[in-house]
Amino acid sequence: MDSPCFRHPHRVTYAECTLGNHVYYARYLNWLEEARGEFFRHLDAPLLHWQAQDTILPVIECHLRYRAAARYDDLVHTEVWLTELERVRLKFSYRILGSRDEIIVEAWTLHACTSVHEKPKRLPEELAEKLRAHLRA
Amino acid sequence: MDSPCFRHPHRVTYAECTLGNHVYYARYLNWLEEARGEFFRHLDAPLLHWQAQDTILPVIECHLRYRAAARYDDLVHTEVWLTELERVRLKFSYRILGSRDEIIVEAWTLHACTSVHEKPKRLPEELAEKLRAHLRA
Amino acid sequence: MDSPCFRHPHRVTYAECTLGNHVYYARYLNWLEEARGEFFRHLDAPLLHWQAQDTILPVIECHLRYRAAARYDDLVHTEVWLTELERVRLKFSYRILGSRDEIIVEAWTLHACTSVHEKPKRLPEELAEKLRAHLRA
Amino acid sequence: MDSPCFRHPHRVTYAECTLGNHVYYARYLNWLEEARGEFFRHLDAPLLHWQAQDTILPVIECHLRYRAAARYDDLVHTEVWLTELERVRLKFSYRILGSRDEIIVEAWTLHACTSVHEKPKRLPEELAEKLRAHLRA
Repeated sequence: MDSPCFRHPHRVTYAECTLGNHVYYARYLNWLEEARGEFFRHLDAPLLHWQAQDTILPVIECHLRYRAAARYDDLVHTEVWLTELERVRLKFSYRILGSRDEIIVEAWTLHACTSVHEKPKRLPEELAEKLRAHLRA
Repeated sequence: MDSPCFRHPHRVTYAECTLGNHVYYARYLNWLEEARGEFFRHLDAPLLHWQAQDTILPVIECHLRYRAAARYDDLVHTEVWLTELERVRLKFSYRILGSRDEIIVEAWTLHACTSVHEKPKRLPEELAEKLRAHLRA
Repeated sequence: MDSPCFRHPHRVTYAECTLGNHVYYARYLNWLEEARGEFFRHLDAPLLHWQAQDTILPVIECHLRYRAAARYDDLVHTEVWLTELERVRLKFSYRILGSRDEIIVEAWTLHACTSVHEKPKRLPEELAEKLRAHLRA
Repeated sequence: MDSPCFRHPHRVTYAECTLGNHVYYARYLNWLEEARGEFFRHLDAPLLHWQAQDTILPVIECHLRYRAAARYDDLVHTEVWLTELERVRLKFSYRILGSRDEIIVEAWTLHACTSVHEKPKRLPEELAEKLRAHLRA
């Protein structure tokens, strides 16, 4: 019934931590980007392919809720799915899960669909179709 | 009438930019942290002082709206003020302004007040008082 | 004859790039750290295990030679091996290889062996033995 | 007698620290870049100006020696000067000094002079002249 949920693993490095042995709050956004990129590759539609066709998806808004801390050397997983899919914008939702599958971060990012020079444009139908399978209420 | 608004300057470096000559979306959170730290110093209440007294202010939620892009070598300013000040939590609001004072990012961060080991605790009255002067509706 | 050479893959993200579509020069050091951490795990001797035994390996010197640029979405590999293994210090050498196995970066990092409070101490014999198998002239 | 030595201040943020309350080893390279950029501005020859004239200075080699650790909230200073100034390459040397002027890091970076598309080209004479005043044996 439910659409499938893409999951991407990540091992926490020293570079990502700060004082008090936890990941710095901005760095979770790097993981969202990493998981998003891998999600598009998984759909057989890597972001670089769309960029070559003058289509990029800049983030215009984001929201993160920090529920627990990821620590050095933890193996975390980021889940990605779609919660909005419109003509010129789309919204991704995420959960970052810790080693015992506890929720570390809940987040969403809202994106515009634009040309490389940031003019709004319609999401290519081929891409919209691939994304639709990952849309959840 | 209005409470004063603290402003902190920042010069954009290559380290902060990504493809397409703009600042990477996660890096704006670094600037919020930088401005927040300077704001506490400006109040004569640096975060390190409170940490030495077993009080830290971890971020539990954040929201950013990207309105325009900051570019390499731009001189930007981050404005910081309070929009919520409760017993065990507080909310900061921010505007990052570009070289011509255009809005680049609007954001807020919600913080808990905790001990160094992350047990919730009441915001020290001395600190609450200093912050109150920067509270806006 | 030759000792084996540990190799760790990495997919380049937007977070790691800067203007001109290449990885920012400091970020290659993150990859050295990431590969080093995985190398210790591969030896069945993760850094966190040694830290729990009051042994850490802070970097005291490093050198990088940039031969080519890694770009967004490239799949790169970092090779790690030992070139010095003494009582209280050790030196790692690295090559970061691009998608066509061309050399991107050649580097080394020199480390002290210390307690968590950074007092020099002798490298644990159990660890030295594991590392010796990866020592190359 | 001695050429003047350019000095640039920097306040350490949480974003720059890692476990054990010290700055992550790669992040010192960000400070070298920041100080280098400000050094060129101080010479009235900002890097962006040269880029607009198809001249950039990519780093081709670097070396850092870590002598002590910078900590959260420290006010550090980076000193920059030239130690090599040739037709198509130049070398900067640096000292990062802590709050009590103790040496934190000694470093150098070697740069090529190239077009924006990374073809080697001769250092513009106007720039070479400005840099010469900061050349030390």
